[in-house]
Amino acid sequence: MHDIDSRLAFTVELARKAGELGGRYFREIESLTIESKGHQDLVSNGDREVELFIRAALQKEFPDDAIVGEEHAALSGTTGHVWVIDPIDGTANFVRGIPAWCVVIACARNGVTEIGVINEPSTGEIFYARRGGGAFLNGRPIRTSGAASLTEGSVGTGFSNRAELKNIVTLIQLLFVEGGVFFRNASGALMLAYVASGRLLAYCEEHMNSWDCLAGLLLVEEAGGRILVPDPETTVERGTMVIAGGAGVFDKIGALCDKAFSR
Amino acid sequence: MHDIDSRLAFTVELARKAGELGGRYFREIESLTIESKGHQDLVSNGDREVELFIRAALQKEFPDDAIVGEEHAALSGTTGHVWVIDPIDGTANFVRGIPAWCVVIACARNGVTEIGVINEPSTGEIFYARRGGGAFLNGRPIRTSGAASLTEGSVGTGFSNRAELKNIVTLIQLLFVEGGVFFRNASGALMLAYVASGRLLAYCEEHMNSWDCLAGLLLVEEAGGRILVPDPETTVERGTMVIAGGAGVFDKIGALCDKAFSR
Repeated sequence: MHDIDSRLAFTVELARKAGELGGRYFREIESLTIESKGHQDLVSNGDREVELFIRAALQKEFPDDAIVGEEHAALSGTTGHVWVIDPIDGTANFVRGIPAWCVVIACARNGVTEIGVINEPSTGEIFYARRGGGAFLNGRPIRTSGAASLTEGSVGTGFSNRAELKNIVTLIQLLFVEGGVFFRNASGALMLAYVASGRLLAYCEEHMNSWDCLAGLLLVEEAGGRILVPDPETTVERGTMVIAGGAGVFDKIGALCDKAFSR
Repeated sequence: MHDIDSRLAFTVELARKAGELGGRYFREIESLTIESKGHQDLVSNGDREVELFIRAALQKEFPDDAIVGEEHAALSGTTGHVWVIDPIDGTANFVRGIPAWCVVIACARNGVTEIGVINEPSTGEIFYARRGGGAFLNGRPIRTSGAASLTEGSVGTGFSNRAELKNIVTLIQLLFVEGGVFFRNASGALMLAYVASGRLLAYCEEHMNSWDCLAGLLLVEEAGGRILVPDPETTVERGTMVIAGGAGVFDKIGALCDKAFSR
């Protein structure tokens, strides 16, 4: 039997090791030119190998849990626990040698996230939370921003081919009108971790897959922020709209997303 | 007498030490909450102290050169050399604990940049170039992207209160139409370094101050890219519009900027 604290400790250590493995691929990729033969293989291998590494460790420790990941087919389980993993979030950065990428591991039960871990190997920062236990960065408690206005910091945003690009343009315009500014480092999970640690005021994206957002959403909740609560029935499989931020700006950014996003 | 190679070696070492000093402030800031008393002082001190450290070292080594920096008054010189320094580029990140910030040191002669160094302490990467001598990252030669299309990567962008925000919205819209995507990590100098190393296709911003852009523009040129050449008569004092990118996409991004920016 595993209690939730030992599950969390296991997950943090797993994300750390997975980040080391990803980092080895990253440094190899970075030393190649983008156009060179073998570059694309290395990228694909990095993503796949890190996911296989995480899956193997989970299957050994929790053989009856389900696993959902970006790169490989879902594995069903019998315990009600589902591991939701993104081996490399910020793949476009990883591919090009931009150091903003992370390993993301979440564990949900009955659709509700219980554990979330985000490891950014380039800066040595591991963000982690368990439901009801607070959010931490390398052992130190973190809090979302206490700002009351969108003028007091930056709002992270992202987009994918699953949302209309004109909506993100609208959001940026609305944010400017409020005196705010946008931030986009192309790793949604990392930006959610930055919201949890008060570095960004908020993050919003019209649609994210569960492996990109569940860990970060739990981090934000446990760091005292507010989130658009994902539907436990559908999110693991189908993803969700993401709005997350400090308690003082959440309603404000939510109002902008209401206008900008299709729902 | 200093030849340009010894000037470059001196500048790289100076940027490294300045990054260490900035990193000490950054870690202190990051361990405080944003709202706590003393936070703002620490931020301002960090910026100012790093600039004073760089200025003192330059004045000792090159007592007759001019110095222009973001935080302190310009110092005139007699040699025709002007040092152009931004102690912390990406201040909004630095303030909030986001690790994307850098130390920027350029040296121009008669308005033409001869040396450019950008140090990102959080990742341990120092980008540097001297005119005619190529561009390097931690000792390894770097090249701008060989991409021929804006669909092959991301375009960095930025804005300030010196440009109209609606223009950046227009630029993002035009970029989407071309199948491209934008990136904004809120450090213009760092994004220029990422262009030089082929990580971003291009960077454009309607107006940048000389201390934010001269080092990065030289890096892009020396890495085989193309830039909108800054006016040597005015840029050190007044700044410039910035368009810089890989040779295969420079005209394309320039055409979008022609439509989006006021000029």
